[in-house]
Amino acid sequence: MSAGGGDDRIREFTEFRERMNERILAEPNQVVRRFFALDTQAYQAGVLDVATKELLGLVASLVLRCDDCIGYHVARCREAGVGREAMFEAFSIGLVVGGSIVIPHLRRAVDFLDQLEAGAPAPAEHAHD
Amino acid sequence: MSAGGGDDRIREFTEFRERMNERILAEPNQVVRRFFALDTQAYQAGVLDVATKELLGLVASLVLRCDDCIGYHVARCREAGVGREAMFEAFSIGLVVGGSIVIPHLRRAVDFLDQLEAGAPAPAEHAHD
Amino acid sequence: MSAGGGDDRIREFTEFRERMNERILAEPNQVVRRFFALDTQAYQAGVLDVATKELLGLVASLVLRCDDCIGYHVARCREAGVGREAMFEAFSIGLVVGGSIVIPHLRRAVDFLDQLEAGAPAPAEHAHD
Amino acid sequence: MSAGGGDDRIREFTEFRERMNERILAEPNQVVRRFFALDTQAYQAGVLDVATKELLGLVASLVLRCDDCIGYHVARCREAGVGREAMFEAFSIGLVVGGSIVIPHLRRAVDFLDQLEAGAPAPAEHAHD
Amino acid sequence: MSAGGGDDRIREFTEFRERMNERILAEPNQVVRRFFALDTQAYQAGVLDVATKELLGLVASLVLRCDDCIGYHVARCREAGVGREAMFEAFSIGLVVGGSIVIPHLRRAVDFLDQLEAGAPAPAEHAHD
Amino acid sequence: MSAGGGDDRIREFTEFRERMNERILAEPNQVVRRFFALDTQAYQAGVLDVATKELLGLVASLVLRCDDCIGYHVARCREAGVGREAMFEAFSIGLVVGGSIVIPHLRRAVDFLDQLEAGAPAPAEHAHD
Repeated sequence: MSAGGGDDRIREFTEFRERMNERILAEPNQVVRRFFALDTQAYQAGVLDVATKELLGLVASLVLRCDDCIGYHVARCREAGVGREAMFEAFSIGLVVGGSIVIPHLRRAVDFLDQLEAGAPAPAEHAHD
Repeated sequence: MSAGGGDDRIREFTEFRERMNERILAEPNQVVRRFFALDTQAYQAGVLDVATKELLGLVASLVLRCDDCIGYHVARCREAGVGREAMFEAFSIGLVVGGSIVIPHLRRAVDFLDQLEAGAPAPAEHAHD
Repeated sequence: MSAGGGDDRIREFTEFRERMNERILAEPNQVVRRFFALDTQAYQAGVLDVATKELLGLVASLVLRCDDCIGYHVARCREAGVGREAMFEAFSIGLVVGGSIVIPHLRRAVDFLDQLEAGAPAPAEHAHD
Repeated sequence: MSAGGGDDRIREFTEFRERMNERILAEPNQVVRRFFALDTQAYQAGVLDVATKELLGLVASLVLRCDDCIGYHVARCREAGVGREAMFEAFSIGLVVGGSIVIPHLRRAVDFLDQLEAGAPAPAEHAHD
Repeated sequence: MSAGGGDDRIREFTEFRERMNERILAEPNQVVRRFFALDTQAYQAGVLDVATKELLGLVASLVLRCDDCIGYHVARCREAGVGREAMFEAFSIGLVVGGSIVIPHLRRAVDFLDQLEAGAPAPAEHAHD
Repeated sequence: MSAGGGDDRIREFTEFRERMNERILAEPNQVVRRFFALDTQAYQAGVLDVATKELLGLVASLVLRCDDCIGYHVARCREAGVGREAMFEAFSIGLVVGGSIVIPHLRRAVDFLDQLEAGAPAPAEHAHD
């Protein structure tokens, strides 16, 4: 999901992600496995709905500048019904809080969003699935 | 807003914050002034409402571990009607995304929230006020 | 645990830490509670012994520049039998990996270590205790 | 601009950068657009000249470890007349402040600089152009 | 150098800084000592003059958000003849690159600069002095 | 060493790394060269053995999220006799301290480790070799 991208990139990233999640969860390390479970639990609907929680995950990923995480939450936001305009409002907060250093990640986020809107397949649900 | 805290701390912080904002905005540097204006504009109601935007600012501040910013957004969230349970759901996402390194800031965030709920005065609205 | 320090500072920090941990764990947020439990579990003896794991926690805290976390792991390392020379070797790796931006935290870490060696009380075991 | 690189990589990066800037600025989000304008304004000549400001942007990008930003400022520095020796002095400050974690980015920065000196086309001026 | 500040704060910080530097350099750890020496060497005049190098150190410290480092480089910049307007141009680049998360540190930087201009004593030269 | 990977990726990365180290050390900048030497010295056996020091470098790299550094220390740990289970315990501490933002880097770290165990060639010893 670096410069360029495109449909194949998303597919390649998704396959790598799922294959490695399986590898990691097959390992007998309970702390890692519980962390993955907790990561899923954190985004389940509570007082805040799924869309809001995924937006929180998206902005956290933007300011920490993790392309894989940003792409993941952009996809999850879309599935939870977050529209393009709302997504850009979240982007704008990430940009103001995190600064211009966020811009290269914003470019890739918008590219990723464009591809999802054009019909590219989204990565499967949370880390341990 | 480091270890300890209390009503006087919030007042001291609020006064320092307002005094320095005035100093900074009195300076003839247009980039800095425009940045402060943009910081305010980013949190105004749009497709996303103010409560959601302040929650985004809160989680971004948590994972970037800035106590002053966290305290500020906790206060703004409360004013926008975000309840304690919703606040903790946002905290939990910040904690999972940002890791245990966030815990000392979470302690101070909860201490700050407790003080606001006990009646301490909140810092005034965004950066350039 | 900022500039200055001393015995009272450690006591004040320790009391604040324990009081807030209780507040946080009294909250009905399962993700936060499970995270605190996981944080404790991660440092229990496994193939790696406790001293090595606490050193890992110490260097991670140094490069992420969290004074409270550094102080906590310095105390835990000492209890696990890590001597001053070994501690400085860990500090030196944190300094080289993290850069000169780590120096102010190194100063406070050494001050904290000096106080522990002079008999100051250490903070209690992991986050949720 | 990851491991490897070469003339095509710079061209691919530059095209992606310009295409996505256009996409982003076509979006009706005023905060994002104003941020891009401010990003350009910050580097215009003032009391400090353009070369000094681009060096500031370069070191900030190095310690925050953003390859795209580093490459961009390396190109701008060159255009503003910053020579190779001065560039390395800036690199050395970024390395000492940011630590060994900066080294992989330094490698790519030097590779990028080598390519520019060998005649590769530089990315166009600031973010919103 | 947290919220509040004032002449005593700078004195307290300076004394702590010098005392701990001595403690650290008295330790028989060659890596740490060499790092401190390298930190000093990095800011010596070369192709770039001292003022430019200190501005680079200042902006790096701003975007990495280290108050002690920022205060130190603000003092060094002043000694190297950097005026208030130039300092604010450097601040504005740090603010745009690093985002609104830099604002609390900017407040303390301006407060520190105000105190230096009002006659407060500056911390002594680089880390190992 | 981004999504995908494989034997060629490691070879390409290793070649790029060695070529650029040579380029950088050929440059007449003493601060950069001394930094590279110090980076090597920090991991030499002392009171702590090489395996422990490389584990410290690994966890520091994980929480700072630098793929190249992680891959490098994974290879060095293996050479120093650190087994897969111990490696995962170090990973789990990096994950808990650094949060879910570390997960994409953990995936690539495990992929890299798998390839080393399958016989891929490891990058040569420290930075300036």
